[in-house]
Amino acid sequence: MSKFTPKDPDFSDRVRDSFSRQKFMDFIGARIETVEPGYCEVVVPFKPELTQQHGFFHGGITGAIADNAAGYASFSLMPADATILTTEYKINLISPAKGDALIARARVKKPGRTLTVVEADVFARDGDKETAVAHMLATMLCLHGKEDKAGAVSDA
Amino acid sequence: MSKFTPKDPDFSDRVRDSFSRQKFMDFIGARIETVEPGYCEVVVPFKPELTQQHGFFHGGITGAIADNAAGYASFSLMPADATILTTEYKINLISPAKGDALIARARVKKPGRTLTVVEADVFARDGDKETAVAHMLATMLCLHGKEDKAGAVSDA
Amino acid sequence: MSKFTPKDPDFSDRVRDSFSRQKFMDFIGARIETVEPGYCEVVVPFKPELTQQHGFFHGGITGAIADNAAGYASFSLMPADATILTTEYKINLISPAKGDALIARARVKKPGRTLTVVEADVFARDGDKETAVAHMLATMLCLHGKEDKAGAVSDA
Amino acid sequence: MSKFTPKDPDFSDRVRDSFSRQKFMDFIGARIETVEPGYCEVVVPFKPELTQQHGFFHGGITGAIADNAAGYASFSLMPADATILTTEYKINLISPAKGDALIARARVKKPGRTLTVVEADVFARDGDKETAVAHMLATMLCLHGKEDKAGAVSDA
Repeated sequence: MSKFTPKDPDFSDRVRDSFSRQKFMDFIGARIETVEPGYCEVVVPFKPELTQQHGFFHGGITGAIADNAAGYASFSLMPADATILTTEYKINLISPAKGDALIARARVKKPGRTLTVVEADVFARDGDKETAVAHMLATMLCLHGKEDKAGAVSDA
Repeated sequence: MSKFTPKDPDFSDRVRDSFSRQKFMDFIGARIETVEPGYCEVVVPFKPELTQQHGFFHGGITGAIADNAAGYASFSLMPADATILTTEYKINLISPAKGDALIARARVKKPGRTLTVVEADVFARDGDKETAVAHMLATMLCLHGKEDKAGAVSDA
Repeated sequence: MSKFTPKDPDFSDRVRDSFSRQKFMDFIGARIETVEPGYCEVVVPFKPELTQQHGFFHGGITGAIADNAAGYASFSLMPADATILTTEYKINLISPAKGDALIARARVKKPGRTLTVVEADVFARDGDKETAVAHMLATMLCLHGKEDKAGAVSDA
Repeated sequence: MSKFTPKDPDFSDRVRDSFSRQKFMDFIGARIETVEPGYCEVVVPFKPELTQQHGFFHGGITGAIADNAAGYASFSLMPADATILTTEYKINLISPAKGDALIARARVKKPGRTLTVVEADVFARDGDKETAVAHMLATMLCLHGKEDKAGAVSDA
């Protein structure tokens, strides 16, 4: 169904294993809902600890799960012996992040050996209604020969 | 010392009060270290709950405190009856966020009635050494006549 | 066909008139190919004067037509008595801009009274083949009560 | 005076030679004013062909010279056998670009083997007064072993 062919057939396990080692994702209660080649969905249910001054999801949560979804959408297409770094991203916050859960859906625009360009949309789910709350455009860096489990060093 | 004159002489209280109502900042242990007209510094000490898969500060923390410092640097120059929204930001992650604490220092580049352009640098402090880990460029929106304490509605 | 309803039924004339007053667009040979509510397509045929050091379209051309397409896609949804300013944009250059023509296609993501978030894709056309060369995410500002023909003043 | 040591002692000739092969820079009348290790200044005098619909410098010119200054500030620190590509940039347009000339001044924030993060400020000069009109934050890619004179191929 995806338009991309993964270099590593075990991409899903590799993505989920890497995600599970991010203590911050556990701390905020985020989980990977779906991972396909070049696509990743991250969900975080509402809790008061995640709010900003008006009681909505904090922009830091929106940015964090969009960045994670974008990173793992990209990582799903990388070879088994690589790790990933977020080089940079830009995010537009377009509506208040108000709801029961936030959902980040990321799709790779252009995979590359070194750099991958990826987009993510973030939605707030309120009952059975979804509202677009943010849009991200990001650049991911693939570090070849640096397995994700080791402590990666950014010398890029 | 600042090159900006605040419209609201009580800007510091207003900023600190707004910050204190952000439950997410308390959850991650962040605090405002300094606020001056057009300048804000936010610090977050290390704890394992804030890490990514390599044991460094998660990019979501870096983005969140940079966004907060940028927002409050901008908010310090806004009138008393206004609230603030982050419209968008771009962040470059330039080094691993490894250290005892992360410090975001934001400076307003161009204040405006509607839009304020602001920069933030994020540093990782390791003992008495500081390393630049990220740089943000952001656009903040001032909503006039919508006091920050009320639940702001983004209809921008 | 568009999901947006224009506030000004004469949006197409207004867009084309504004575009025609941009001397730089004439200088580089760019034209509006299509304008629909929330959508705009700008095309520029190749000429050697538009190239960078490797003989491809210069990134400045890619950025300029993406920004224009994004601006006019947004302007198409604004009221008749408004003018538009580009607040900011981010662009990823994803492939060399090599071909007979460059085409920027912009779609509004989120229109707003003050701010509009808009995306643009730029393609290089080589014979009958199109390659994606760039992707832009931009924020446009609507200045109400400042007709586009007058010399707009950015006090935002 | 610069805080950076160039890898190539002939960086200035290499930068000026590359710039001179950009036909688009000649077409708009832009020139390099200064190049130092990690710093570059590009100037373009006003001419009506460079304007947008309100008679000011077109945003495409602002973006093009900021991108060029940023690229050559970065290129000045790269080895002799490398070429450079702009990966992405974000630009905020903060004031109307009105004046006799536009000046882009770029400074490298963080050089790297693969990626360089760089900032540029653009000013409009009107008589002896300068106004900040734009600010850019960009990521440049160094392609090793691909001399700038050859037709570079972006496979990043």
